[in-house]
Amino acid sequence: MATLCRPAVSVPEHVITMEQTLDLARTVHADHPQLDLALRLIRNTGVEKRHLLQPIEETLRHPGFEHRNAVYESEAKARVPAVIERALADAELRPVDIDVIIYVSCTGFMMPSLTAWLINSMGFRTDARQVPIAQLGCAAGGAAVNRAHDFCTAYPEANALVVACEFCSLCYQPTDLDVGNLLSNGLFGDGLAAAVVRGRGGRGVALERNGSYLVRDTEDWIAYDVRSTGFHFKLDRRVPGTMEPLAPALRALAAEHGWDAASLDFYIIHAGGPRILDDLGKYLGVPSEAFRFSRATLTQYGNIASAVVLDALRRLFDEGSTRHAARGILAGFGPGITAEMSLGRWTEAEVPAPAGRC
Amino acid sequence: MATLCRPAVSVPEHVITMEQTLDLARTVHADHPQLDLALRLIRNTGVEKRHLLQPIEETLRHPGFEHRNAVYESEAKARVPAVIERALADAELRPVDIDVIIYVSCTGFMMPSLTAWLINSMGFRTDARQVPIAQLGCAAGGAAVNRAHDFCTAYPEANALVVACEFCSLCYQPTDLDVGNLLSNGLFGDGLAAAVVRGRGGRGVALERNGSYLVRDTEDWIAYDVRSTGFHFKLDRRVPGTMEPLAPALRALAAEHGWDAASLDFYIIHAGGPRILDDLGKYLGVPSEAFRFSRATLTQYGNIASAVVLDALRRLFDEGSTRHAARGILAGFGPGITAEMSLGRWTEAEVPAPAGRC
Repeated sequence: MATLCRPAVSVPEHVITMEQTLDLARTVHADHPQLDLALRLIRNTGVEKRHLLQPIEETLRHPGFEHRNAVYESEAKARVPAVIERALADAELRPVDIDVIIYVSCTGFMMPSLTAWLINSMGFRTDARQVPIAQLGCAAGGAAVNRAHDFCTAYPEANALVVACEFCSLCYQPTDLDVGNLLSNGLFGDGLAAAVVRGRGGRGVALERNGSYLVRDTEDWIAYDVRSTGFHFKLDRRVPGTMEPLAPALRALAAEHGWDAASLDFYIIHAGGPRILDDLGKYLGVPSEAFRFSRATLTQYGNIASAVVLDALRRLFDEGSTRHAARGILAGFGPGITAEMSLGRWTEAEVPAPAGRC
Repeated sequence: MATLCRPAVSVPEHVITMEQTLDLARTVHADHPQLDLALRLIRNTGVEKRHLLQPIEETLRHPGFEHRNAVYESEAKARVPAVIERALADAELRPVDIDVIIYVSCTGFMMPSLTAWLINSMGFRTDARQVPIAQLGCAAGGAAVNRAHDFCTAYPEANALVVACEFCSLCYQPTDLDVGNLLSNGLFGDGLAAAVVRGRGGRGVALERNGSYLVRDTEDWIAYDVRSTGFHFKLDRRVPGTMEPLAPALRALAAEHGWDAASLDFYIIHAGGPRILDDLGKYLGVPSEAFRFSRATLTQYGNIASAVVLDALRRLFDEGSTRHAARGILAGFGPGITAEMSLGRWTEAEVPAPAGRC
């Protein structure tokens, strides 16, 4: 049984509060015809603060795609190893125990991916599989957990390392002035996370089933325009309403497993924005309290893309109230529009079988 | 047993011959201090012709990263469905039978990845998993086969679709003037391929074991510089010598499986360049003839990146001389430097068990 162990999470040291974000929007976009709408949308996110790689003055500059990508690379190299070390320690494994590294990140691009550098610099085995995924956006945290689950299902003795590194502030585009962009500028934050999926043993969520779902004909609702200035985020105004088609996908996956999505013990949901959580609660018939982990991530860090689900899960571990065999769902949502979902049961560390018993 | 079925391959209609390539190099780089070396290196590739998306005059222009990426997207949408249709037909499956789409491509970037569009436009199921990989370069063809194998190992009834779409000519950078760039300009071609890995049934290579190997501290030997002008390919002069560390990795994987890498029945090897095949033959103790499929791909299409191994495999199918249970290896090489290898046995289509027999 593959077990998703405690994620380690890190956010950078530069903090911007909701009030500072609103002030900035008022200053930078003083003449914007939809400034009031943008301010209202930002206020509605409930994001109290976010953490950024660089001081705000620097974040607002655009020194070019090449420079930004170089910052991405150097900051990833500076910050990723620490979360990996903590994730490995929590899973009681060493780098040599890891068979596959699944690295997800949509806010910078490197070839080779950071996986090669991690193997070289952190003592992973040279035969560790590398699965870098850049194009699943916010859904990639869920996808990484699911591909780790698949891998450990194929090779039950294997261990997978999942890493999500998202520096959303490096995709800030000062010339993008749609209301969707202004909202995004107040919603996304920087953060990174790592977690181990252990094929055997481990304490956390024993993964039982996973699934993916694409909402047809919504490819351009969440998308990047790829330009000489880098990745330009496009957010359609219909995105906050996507829980209507996605809630049934969550319900269907749970039903296939003989579970009722309305009455699970824990919910680890991508907090893309507040309405996603509100709507999902409504469509699934689940009280708002059930999404407290996701809401805390959103409030404290903003939308940190693929790292949201790992941070929300970390908060579930930290709360410490989940009982053995409690049933839950983890779901990432992102471009496609794609949902990456998994079902699992809380498990305390396996007690080794007494000697002599087979 | 997961079986890799016949790949379908397509190359674009604009052809450039070796002589035209040499003439172009002489014209464009008349004053280059190392022109003679570059011409010799290009001649040594043995690439008789390559196929390009656009006429050569257009290929040599750089209309900007945004425009090139738009060409990537429209050409991928125009060309990928046909190879998928043929791959599905050869595997005797329909789009609804596919459980995971693994799309590899390092020559353009889209978010969402083409997988979302494929699901929407070709009748794949909305719950098909999407695994887009952009950062494994030429190794990604092997990686895609291996991840498909893993998936079918986890879910033995599942079917995986592998797609490799490489428009290398869209990464031509007129201002890159290293000898490695001049060589690359004469080596890489455009091409795309698709293949199905069937969990049950199918005719082709029954996949038995896969493995990955990273050559330590070679991250910058094959790499992209990411700039406002797009992806700039960097090729270290030491790359052609990498079979010395990689041949033992192939041998080790075969040995783990109880096989001798020197005496397999077929070899499907990434033909990055001619020396890779020459050296691998030397280090493994395998006659040159064993690499005839890879060499034909190189000669006829040039290095088509992640699509090379699929095209070489297609040539093995077309030769038609492989006997049941013949043992072989497939290996992709790319940035990292990473090898993605798999071992399998040729299998004719499974005969269904007679009714009444369990």
